Amino acid sequence: MLGDDFLRSSAQKSIIMNDSIEQLAKLFSRFPGIGERQSKRFVYFLLRQPESYIRELLASMTELRKRIRICESCFRHFESTKDSLCDICRNPKTDSSLLMVVEKDADFESIRRSGTYKGKYFILGGLVPIVEKSTPNNVRIEELKDTIESRAKDTILKEVIIALALTPHADHTDTYLKSELDKLKETYGFKISSLGRGLSTGTELEYSDNDTIKNAFKNRQ
Amino acid sequence: MLGDDFLRSSAQKSIIMNDSIEQLAKLFSRFPGIGERQSKRFVYFLLRQPESYIRELLASMTELRKRIRICESCFRHFESTKDSLCDICRNPKTDSSLLMVVEKDADFESIRRSGTYKGKYFILGGLVPIVEKSTPNNVRIEELKDTIESRAKDTILKEVIIALALTPHADHTDTYLKSELDKLKETYGFKISSLGRGLSTGTELEYSDNDTIKNAFKNRQ
Amino acid sequence: MLGDDFLRSSAQKSIIMNDSIEQLAKLFSRFPGIGERQSKRFVYFLLRQPESYIRELLASMTELRKRIRICESCFRHFESTKDSLCDICRNPKTDSSLLMVVEKDADFESIRRSGTYKGKYFILGGLVPIVEKSTPNNVRIEELKDTIESRAKDTILKEVIIALALTPHADHTDTYLKSELDKLKETYGFKISSLGRGLSTGTELEYSDNDTIKNAFKNRQ
Amino acid sequence: MLGDDFLRSSAQKSIIMNDSIEQLAKLFSRFPGIGERQSKRFVYFLLRQPESYIRELLASMTELRKRIRICESCFRHFESTKDSLCDICRNPKTDSSLLMVVEKDADFESIRRSGTYKGKYFILGGLVPIVEKSTPNNVRIEELKDTIESRAKDTILKEVIIALALTPHADHTDTYLKSELDKLKETYGFKISSLGRGLSTGTELEYSDNDTIKNAFKNRQ
Repeated sequence: MLGDDFLRSSAQKSIIMNDSIEQLAKLFSRFPGIGERQSKRFVYFLLRQPESYIRELLASMTELRKRIRICESCFRHFESTKDSLCDICRNPKTDSSLLMVVEKDADFESIRRSGTYKGKYFILGGLVPIVEKSTPNNVRIEELKDTIESRAKDTILKEVIIALALTPHADHTDTYLKSELDKLKETYGFKISSLGRGLSTGTELEYSDNDTIKNAFKNRQ
Repeated sequence: MLGDDFLRSSAQKSIIMNDSIEQLAKLFSRFPGIGERQSKRFVYFLLRQPESYIRELLASMTELRKRIRICESCFRHFESTKDSLCDICRNPKTDSSLLMVVEKDADFESIRRSGTYKGKYFILGGLVPIVEKSTPNNVRIEELKDTIESRAKDTILKEVIIALALTPHADHTDTYLKSELDKLKETYGFKISSLGRGLSTGTELEYSDNDTIKNAFKNRQ
Repeated sequence: MLGDDFLRSSAQKSIIMNDSIEQLAKLFSRFPGIGERQSKRFVYFLLRQPESYIRELLASMTELRKRIRICESCFRHFESTKDSLCDICRNPKTDSSLLMVVEKDADFESIRRSGTYKGKYFILGGLVPIVEKSTPNNVRIEELKDTIESRAKDTILKEVIIALALTPHADHTDTYLKSELDKLKETYGFKISSLGRGLSTGTELEYSDNDTIKNAFKNRQ
Repeated sequence: MLGDDFLRSSAQKSIIMNDSIEQLAKLFSRFPGIGERQSKRFVYFLLRQPESYIRELLASMTELRKRIRICESCFRHFESTKDSLCDICRNPKTDSSLLMVVEKDADFESIRRSGTYKGKYFILGGLVPIVEKSTPNNVRIEELKDTIESRAKDTILKEVIIALALTPHADHTDTYLKSELDKLKETYGFKISSLGRGLSTGTELEYSDNDTIKNAFKNRQ
């Protein structure tokens, strides 16, 4: 009869021996919103797929980096093999008197999809941590200042719109950006605004927090 | 050996014989958010409680109707045995130049809890259906007009604030109220406002619908 | 201008003055699965209902206690004004060689609904706490022993089926009952069984815990 | 002023121009449990990662296919560059009188993790559809028959354990396998069993369906 020791050591061995699966699962587990279990399912999914799908996936991931570049002006990802500016920055019809600062590409896409805004964008690249004192590397604060300065010199920059989420982290970044841009604002005379606050689609007063009600009341119209 | 027939008829009988339980469960199933299963659990819960709890519950439900009355001025529920006006309507410090129209008592409580608003209230009692042409009975539109008219004559009424949810049904009611109150507004010269719209606490742009983004952009400041 | 002090003291006063609402809400918040917010919604719901509904609800709750009694033999709730035994205990077709011990009425109902079992029942009234040493008052262990003893003397009692949930608390109670009934089992020669363990409807192996897999393997057939 | 036409055509163009992003997102959206939105987030996540992570991910995905092979005997994925049999099939201590049939690798992993079973496995590769008449290609029914036959000839095969989920689809497959293996069972005299059914961890009787209660009662012990 086989004892527990056999089972345990054998189970352990099996984990060691399948480490291609474990290794790839570990890499997948860094994907946003993916836990350990689902990352393992991804690996088994890939093992079941036809060779053609895997080839396409590998090619697509390899190509992504080659074809997608970051716009030198607004820092969003766009596809091009020759241009250094994205289609919005290049387009002469884009209203360059407006500059909207967003956190990331996905936020840009939401705003673009809404069809409301016709000006330029700037992808900040991250949020400013509440506790740390130093500015983090991934937030493009210096690049933002440079962009605003050169824009203000060249054209009539009327307004910088800070378009961030309504979370403590984003709220802190909003305040930080305003204080950082204050001097430029004085020098060049543009306006700094933030997205309006109040009731969002589906909000019911009965279940609203105090801040939402305060903002909705203050910004009534 | 007992057949299925016995089981079925016996099961049926047992349901018929316990109809005090079934009957109370049915009444509980009308409570907001309560399904058939939970209403049954309520009944068994009551059966397990000490006599004192049941007595207190029955007394409290009986008293509720006697003690709670509807304020003649703002139509919210309040507790009193003698007054016809609630504590807010009676309070001379309440700012009577402002009137906030809310759908129901729970909405009033949320706004009250936020500590933002110092004026009077009016409980509308419901929302106006989108499809029906006639005004529903449970919406106090005539009472609202009367209240505004007598308020406007007596004091300086500066503003009526429509404070409803941001749902299609509530949005329709907002529009309806504005058109119904338009004439009074012209006559007495007060302002009509609605709660501000935009980002509410926790909103992330990446997951926002077009309307929220449009409102947040339009109401930027 | 009114200060925050006015708002706060006024808000406080309003809570004190509406304590019929608060008091009933507090009683409702003891209902199973009901939090503070929903209990308040129950009160406002009652305030909006027609008088007839409230009368029916009060009558139904008052009647419940009068009409529903506890069966002297199996301790389940049943409706009767004269009988001391429930319909199942009275029914001569019930197989009295089998006794199924369940925790509560709702469990009895589930088993009854499944139409699988034709024997007698016993409602234990609760589960035995894992930490406390003394038997809790609400578990009818002595009554169970008496019932089994008198049943075993009168008729041929073949099997006692312990039908509890598969949770640590219920599992502990299962073990406790078996040790408490051991002596009676030796004396009268009946069998003690527990409900089978393994895969339940919807179980997927990929997401199963070790215990479920162990039980399913051990009880394969 | 820019019209809606500009916005729309520009938005459209932007989607066309970023089709490396769209294309990869589409491939990711085939991953199990991943919708359109999350697949897009995966792409932006990859764009933000350091080159080293991407290289590692690509290498790991490329290696996976090379290093992971399917065991010739049990059809599970295992890592090896030389062996054609997995570590369990090769291990002389594995109890080859038992054969457990599971749907997929993830189910095998759950059972392995539970440490209950010491015999051989067989990965079926899928479930048999309820409606279609023909056996699907991805279910290794012929391979299963061959494995059983050669095993039964070489060694004393005592039992085939069908270890599938408890869903309609899996239940149908269980029945199908039993009928397909019936002849071999008669010829070689082994037993066919299925995983036990009843209460699984966490099951409460109050919320159980009739089938779970029936199985738990039938399989009491």
